[in-house]
Amino acid sequence: MKAIVRIDLKQGVLDPQGQAVANALRGLGFDEVASARQGKLIELELTGETNVDSARARVEEMCRKLLANPVIERYHIDIVAVAPAE
Amino acid sequence: MKAIVRIDLKQGVLDPQGQAVANALRGLGFDEVASARQGKLIELELTGETNVDSARARVEEMCRKLLANPVIERYHIDIVAVAPAE
Repeated sequence: MKAIVRIDLKQGVLDPQGQAVANALRGLGFDEVASARQGKLIELELTGETNVDSARARVEEMCRKLLANPVIERYHIDIVAVAPAE
Repeated sequence: MKAIVRIDLKQGVLDPQGQAVANALRGLGFDEVASARQGKLIELELTGETNVDSARARVEEMCRKLLANPVIERYHIDIVAVAPAE
């Protein structure tokens, strides 16, 4: 079973890395970029776990304990039952 | 219009950051974690762009020119017509 965790900064939290990306894109001529925000993407391969709900609960615990900083970040978990073939 | 770009390492490319995440999770007792891979998540706010296909083409150009390293990374673009309210 696979879990895809998207972690990004909460609205209102300053994101200098995203601002740098937006500035660099505008510098390259992409004037339509109003703003950019950068986050993290973590893909976990889980073994021995067959229930989607309990897998999600475990991954939420991982987010709270290690992966995300709940003060400034929010996270979104997608559980994928079968790994996509790519 | 909003574009969500997910960038991760191609299969087979060594990911020391992901390995560190997997080791840290197992150290915390999450023994079901077989492996972890870490990528980037970039959210772009685009102005003056109304056509989804042309927006996607522009964001692909951004990925090739700045956001991703096509030698070791792959990217996936989602275009969201209206910003989600959150």
